[in-house]
Amino acid sequence: MLADAGIVLTPAEREAIEVTDFGLGDLEQYGLQIVVYVNTERVCAKELVLFPGQTCPEHRHPPVEGEPGKEETFRVRRGVVHLHLGEEEIVLRPGDQHTIPPDTLHWFQAGDEGAVVSEFSTRSRDETDVFTDPRIRRV
Amino acid sequence: MLADAGIVLTPAEREAIEVTDFGLGDLEQYGLQIVVYVNTERVCAKELVLFPGQTCPEHRHPPVEGEPGKEETFRVRRGVVHLHLGEEEIVLRPGDQHTIPPDTLHWFQAGDEGAVVSEFSTRSRDETDVFTDPRIRRV
Repeated sequence: MLADAGIVLTPAEREAIEVTDFGLGDLEQYGLQIVVYVNTERVCAKELVLFPGQTCPEHRHPPVEGEPGKEETFRVRRGVVHLHLGEEEIVLRPGDQHTIPPDTLHWFQAGDEGAVVSEFSTRSRDETDVFTDPRIRRV
Repeated sequence: MLADAGIVLTPAEREAIEVTDFGLGDLEQYGLQIVVYVNTERVCAKELVLFPGQTCPEHRHPPVEGEPGKEETFRVRRGVVHLHLGEEEIVLRPGDQHTIPPDTLHWFQAGDEGAVVSEFSTRSRDETDVFTDPRIRRV
Protein backbone atom coordinates (compact mmCIF):
# COMPACT_ATOMS: atom_id res chain seq x y z
CA MET A 1 0.00 0.00 0.00
CA LEU A 2 2.88 2.38 0.72
CA ALA A 3 4.47 1.54 -2.63
CA ASP A 4 1.14 2.08 -4.39
CA ALA A 5 1.05 5.53 -2.76
CA GLY A 6 4.45 6.31 -4.29
CA ILE A 7 6.16 6.25 -0.89
CA VAL A 8 9.75 5.04 -0.85
CA LEU A 9 11.13 3.46 2.32
CA THR A 10 14.70 2.49 3.07
CA PRO A 11 15.35 -1.21 3.77
CA ALA A 12 15.83 -0.37 7.47
CA GLU A 13 12.47 1.40 7.56
CA ARG A 14 10.75 -1.56 5.92
CA GLU A 15 12.16 -3.79 8.66
CA ALA A 16 10.98 -1.41 11.39
CA ILE A 17 7.31 -0.97 10.48
CA GLU A 18 5.38 -0.94 13.75
CA VAL A 19 2.25 -3.08 13.86
CA THR A 20 -0.12 -2.60 16.77
CA ASP A 21 -3.40 -4.32 17.58
CA PHE A 22 -3.78 -2.14 20.70
CA GLY A 23 -3.78 -5.33 22.74
CA LEU A 24 -7.25 -6.30 21.45
CA GLY A 25 -6.07 -9.32 19.46
CA ASP A 26 -8.07 -8.48 16.33
CA LEU A 27 -5.63 -6.67 14.07
CA GLU A 28 -7.78 -6.74 10.93
CA GLN A 29 -10.48 -4.77 12.78
CA TYR A 30 -8.52 -2.72 15.32
CA GLY A 31 -4.98 -1.72 14.60
CA LEU A 32 -2.46 0.41 12.79
CA GLN A 33 0.68 -0.07 10.77
CA ILE A 34 3.13 2.77 11.36
CA VAL A 35 6.35 4.04 9.81
CA VAL A 36 8.00 6.57 12.12
CA TYR A 37 10.20 8.91 10.09
CA VAL A 38 11.26 11.20 12.90
CA ASN A 39 10.30 11.78 16.53
CA THR A 40 12.40 14.42 18.26
CA GLU A 41 11.59 16.46 21.36
CA ARG A 42 9.69 18.90 19.14
CA VAL A 43 8.49 17.24 15.93
CA CYS A 44 7.18 13.88 14.76
CA ALA A 45 6.28 12.61 11.29
CA LYS A 46 4.86 9.22 10.41
CA GLU A 47 3.03 7.32 7.72
CA LEU A 48 0.03 5.34 8.92
CA VAL A 49 -1.35 2.41 6.92
CA LEU A 50 -4.86 1.12 7.62
CA PHE A 51 -6.28 -2.08 6.19
CA PRO A 52 -9.75 -1.93 4.62
CA GLY A 53 -12.18 -1.02 7.40
CA GLN A 54 -9.43 -1.07 10.05
CA THR A 55 -10.05 1.25 13.02
CA CYS A 56 -7.76 3.18 15.35
CA PRO A 57 -9.81 3.24 18.57
CA GLU A 58 -10.87 6.41 20.36
CA HIS A 59 -8.15 8.11 22.36
CA ARG A 60 -6.68 11.48 23.30
CA HIS A 61 -3.21 12.89 23.86
CA PRO A 62 -3.15 14.54 27.32
CA PRO A 63 -0.71 17.18 28.54
CA VAL A 64 2.61 15.70 29.67
CA GLU A 65 5.15 17.31 31.98
CA GLY A 66 3.61 20.75 31.71
CA GLU A 67 3.45 20.72 27.93
CA PRO A 68 0.17 20.72 26.00
CA GLY A 69 -0.76 17.33 24.58
CA LYS A 70 0.27 16.18 21.14
CA GLU A 71 -1.16 18.19 18.25
CA GLU A 72 -1.52 16.14 15.10
CA THR A 73 -2.47 16.74 11.49
CA PHE A 74 -3.69 13.79 9.43
CA ARG A 75 -3.27 14.10 5.67
CA VAL A 76 -4.77 11.34 3.56
CA ARG A 77 -2.53 10.15 0.73
CA ARG A 78 -4.57 7.21 -0.55
CA GLY A 79 -7.99 5.80 0.24
CA VAL A 80 -10.68 7.32 2.44
CA VAL A 81 -10.55 7.95 6.19
CA HIS A 82 -13.54 8.58 8.43
CA LEU A 83 -12.27 10.74 11.28
CA HIS A 84 -14.50 11.02 14.33
CA LEU A 85 -14.16 13.86 16.83
CA GLY A 86 -16.83 13.40 19.47
CA GLU A 87 -20.14 13.46 17.58
CA GLU A 88 -18.56 14.95 14.46
CA GLU A 89 -17.50 12.78 11.51
CA ILE A 90 -15.10 14.18 8.93
CA VAL A 91 -14.53 12.27 5.68
CA LEU A 92 -11.02 12.73 4.33
CA ARG A 93 -10.07 11.80 0.79
CA PRO A 94 -6.63 11.98 -0.90
CA GLY A 95 -5.23 15.50 -0.46
CA ASP A 96 -7.60 16.25 2.43
CA GLN A 97 -6.24 16.88 5.91
CA HIS A 98 -7.42 17.82 9.39
CA THR A 99 -5.58 19.14 12.45
CA ILE A 100 -6.65 17.67 15.80
CA PRO A 101 -6.06 19.94 18.82
CA PRO A 102 -4.29 18.53 21.89
CA ASP A 103 -6.26 16.41 24.34
CA THR A 104 -9.21 15.93 21.93
CA LEU A 105 -10.94 12.55 21.79
CA HIS A 106 -10.75 11.06 18.29
CA TRP A 107 -10.92 7.78 16.40
CA PHE A 108 -10.67 6.95 12.74
CA GLN A 109 -11.47 4.17 10.33
CA ALA A 110 -10.37 3.43 6.77
CA GLY A 111 -12.88 2.92 3.97
CA ASP A 112 -13.20 -0.26 1.92
CA GLU A 113 -9.86 0.16 0.16
CA GLY A 114 -7.76 0.89 3.23
CA ALA A 115 -5.79 4.10 3.55
CA VAL A 116 -2.36 5.67 3.74
CA VAL A 117 -2.18 8.73 5.99
CA SER A 118 0.69 11.11 6.71
CA GLU A 119 0.77 12.34 10.29
CA PHE A 120 2.56 15.60 11.15
CA SER A 121 2.71 16.33 14.87
CA THR A 122 4.53 17.41 17.95
CA ARG A 123 6.50 14.72 19.80
CA SER A 124 4.80 11.30 20.03
CA ARG A 125 4.63 9.84 23.52
CA ASP A 126 2.44 6.83 22.75
CA GLU A 127 2.71 5.47 26.29
CA THR A 128 0.78 8.51 27.60
CA ASP A 129 -2.18 8.15 25.20
CA VAL A 130 -5.53 7.75 26.98
CA PHE A 131 -7.92 5.29 25.32
CA THR A 132 -11.65 5.20 25.97
CA ASP A 133 -11.71 1.38 25.93
CA PRO A 134 -10.11 0.32 29.24
CA ARG A 135 -8.91 -2.97 27.71
CA ILE A 136 -6.44 -1.10 25.52
CA ARG A 137 -2.84 -0.73 26.46
CA ARG A 138 -0.54 1.16 24.11
CA VAL A 139 3.07 0.26 24.74
CA MET B 1 6.82 16.57 -10.41
CA LEU B 2 4.50 16.29 -7.42
CA ALA B 3 2.10 14.10 -9.41
CA ASP B 4 5.02 11.94 -10.55
CA ALA B 5 5.89 11.48 -6.87
CA GLY B 6 2.36 10.23 -6.21
CA ILE B 7 1.46 13.34 -4.22
CA VAL B 8 -2.17 14.45 -4.43
CA LEU B 9 -2.99 18.13 -3.90
CA THR B 10 -6.39 19.72 -3.57
CA PRO B 11 -7.34 22.33 -6.21
CA ALA B 12 -6.87 25.06 -3.58
CA GLU B 13 -3.37 23.79 -2.78
CA ARG B 14 -2.46 23.75 -6.47
CA GLU B 15 -3.49 27.39 -6.70
CA ALA B 16 -1.44 28.30 -3.62
CA ILE B 17 1.95 26.84 -4.50
CA GLU B 18 4.56 29.34 -3.31
CA VAL B 19 7.34 30.15 -5.75
CA THR B 20 10.33 32.08 -4.45
CA ASP B 21 13.48 33.22 -6.24
CA PHE B 22 14.82 34.68 -2.97
CA GLY B 23 14.86 38.08 -4.66
CA LEU B 24 17.80 37.04 -6.87
CA GLY B 25 15.85 37.09 -10.15
CA ASP B 26 17.20 33.76 -11.40
CA LEU B 27 14.56 31.22 -10.44
CA GLU B 28 15.93 28.34 -12.49
CA GLN B 29 19.19 28.52 -10.52
CA TYR B 30 18.12 29.83 -7.12
CA GLY B 31 14.67 29.16 -5.84
CA LEU B 32 12.10 26.84 -4.38
CA GLN B 33 8.53 25.80 -5.07
CA ILE B 34 6.67 25.12 -1.85
CA VAL B 35 3.37 23.55 -0.82
CA VAL B 36 2.60 24.39 2.81
CA TYR B 37 0.32 21.72 4.28
CA VAL B 38 0.21 23.03 7.82
CA ASN B 39 2.00 25.69 9.85
CA THR B 40 0.70 26.03 13.41
CA GLU B 41 2.43 27.49 16.47
CA ARG B 42 4.07 24.10 17.02
CA VAL B 43 4.31 22.10 13.78
CA CYS B 44 4.91 22.70 10.09
CA ALA B 45 4.84 20.33 7.13
CA LYS B 46 5.60 21.18 3.51
CA GLU B 47 6.52 19.66 0.20
CA LEU B 48 9.45 21.33 -1.56
CA VAL B 49 9.97 20.99 -5.30
CA LEU B 50 13.35 21.80 -6.83
CA PHE B 51 14.02 22.07 -10.54
CA PRO B 52 17.04 20.22 -11.96
CA GLY B 53 20.11 21.80 -10.36
CA GLN B 54 18.05 24.41 -8.50
CA THR B 55 19.59 25.63 -5.24
CA CYS B 56 18.14 26.87 -1.97
CA PRO B 57 20.85 29.31 -0.81
CA GLU B 58 22.67 29.04 2.52
CA HIS B 59 20.69 30.18 5.53
CA ARG B 60 19.90 29.41 9.16
CA HIS B 61 16.85 29.59 11.40
CA PRO B 62 17.78 31.65 14.47
CA PRO B 63 16.03 31.64 17.85
CA VAL B 64 12.88 33.78 17.88
CA GLU B 65 11.13 35.22 20.93
CA GLY B 66 13.00 33.00 23.35
CA GLU B 67 12.30 29.78 21.45
CA PRO B 68 15.04 27.74 19.79
CA GLY B 69 15.20 28.20 16.02
CA LYS B 70 13.30 26.02 13.60
CA GLU B 71 14.27 22.36 13.57
CA GLU B 72 13.68 20.71 10.23
CA THR B 73 13.87 17.23 8.78
CA PHE B 74 14.22 16.87 5.01
CA ARG B 75 13.02 13.59 3.54
CA VAL B 76 13.65 13.06 -0.17
CA ARG B 77 10.69 11.58 -2.05
CA ARG B 78 12.02 11.78 -5.62
CA GLY B 79 15.34 12.74 -7.20
CA VAL B 80 18.61 13.46 -5.43
CA VAL B 81 19.41 16.31 -3.04
CA HIS B 82 22.87 17.51 -2.07
CA LEU B 83 22.55 18.94 1.43
CA HIS B 84 25.43 21.10 2.66
CA LEU B 85 26.01 21.77 6.36
CA GLY B 86 29.11 23.93 6.64
CA GLU B 87 31.90 21.86 5.06
CA GLU B 88 29.87 18.66 5.14
CA GLU B 89 27.91 17.41 2.11
CA ILE B 90 25.19 14.81 2.57
CA VAL B 91 23.68 13.14 -0.50
CA LEU B 92 20.04 12.20 0.00
CA ARG B 93 18.22 9.80 -2.30
CA PRO B 94 14.55 8.72 -2.20
CA GLY B 95 13.75 7.44 1.29
CA ASP B 96 16.75 9.20 2.82
CA GLN B 97 16.30 11.98 5.34
CA HIS B 98 18.32 14.27 7.56
CA THR B 99 17.41 16.41 10.56
CA ILE B 100 18.99 19.87 10.74
CA PRO B 101 19.37 21.30 14.24
CA PRO B 102 18.16 24.85 14.94
CA ASP B 103 20.37 27.78 13.92
CA THR B 104 22.60 25.61 11.69
CA LEU B 105 23.83 27.03 8.38
CA HIS B 106 22.67 24.87 5.45
CA TRP B 107 22.01 24.96 1.74
CA PHE B 108 20.84 22.36 -0.71
CA GLN B 109 20.73 21.66 -4.41
CA ALA B 110 18.79 19.19 -6.52
CA GLY B 111 20.51 16.78 -8.86
CA ASP B 112 19.98 16.67 -12.63
CA GLU B 113 16.42 15.37 -12.39
CA GLY B 114 15.16 17.85 -9.81
CA ALA B 115 13.73 16.70 -6.51
CA VAL B 116 10.65 16.48 -4.34
CA VAL B 117 11.36 16.81 -0.61
CA SER B 118 9.04 16.54 2.38
CA GLU B 119 9.92 18.93 5.19
CA PHE B 120 8.78 18.18 8.75
CA SER B 121 9.56 20.96 11.22
CA THR B 122 8.63 23.24 14.04
CA ARG B 123 6.78 26.44 13.09
CA SER B 124 8.06 28.20 9.96
CA ARG B 125 8.81 31.90 10.38
CA ASP B 126 10.36 32.52 6.98
CA GLU B 127 10.74 36.25 7.62
CA THR B 128 13.26 35.53 10.38
CA ASP B 129 15.56 33.32 8.26
CA VAL B 130 19.13 34.60 8.06
CA PHE B 131 20.77 34.18 4.65
CA THR B 132 24.51 34.30 4.06
CA ASP B 133 24.08 36.25 0.80
CA PRO B 134 23.15 39.82 1.88
CA ARG B 135 21.24 40.39 -1.39
CA ILE B 136 18.59 37.88 -0.35
CA ARG B 137 15.37 38.95 1.22
CA ARG B 138 12.84 36.26 2.18
CA VAL B 139 9.39 37.75 2.50
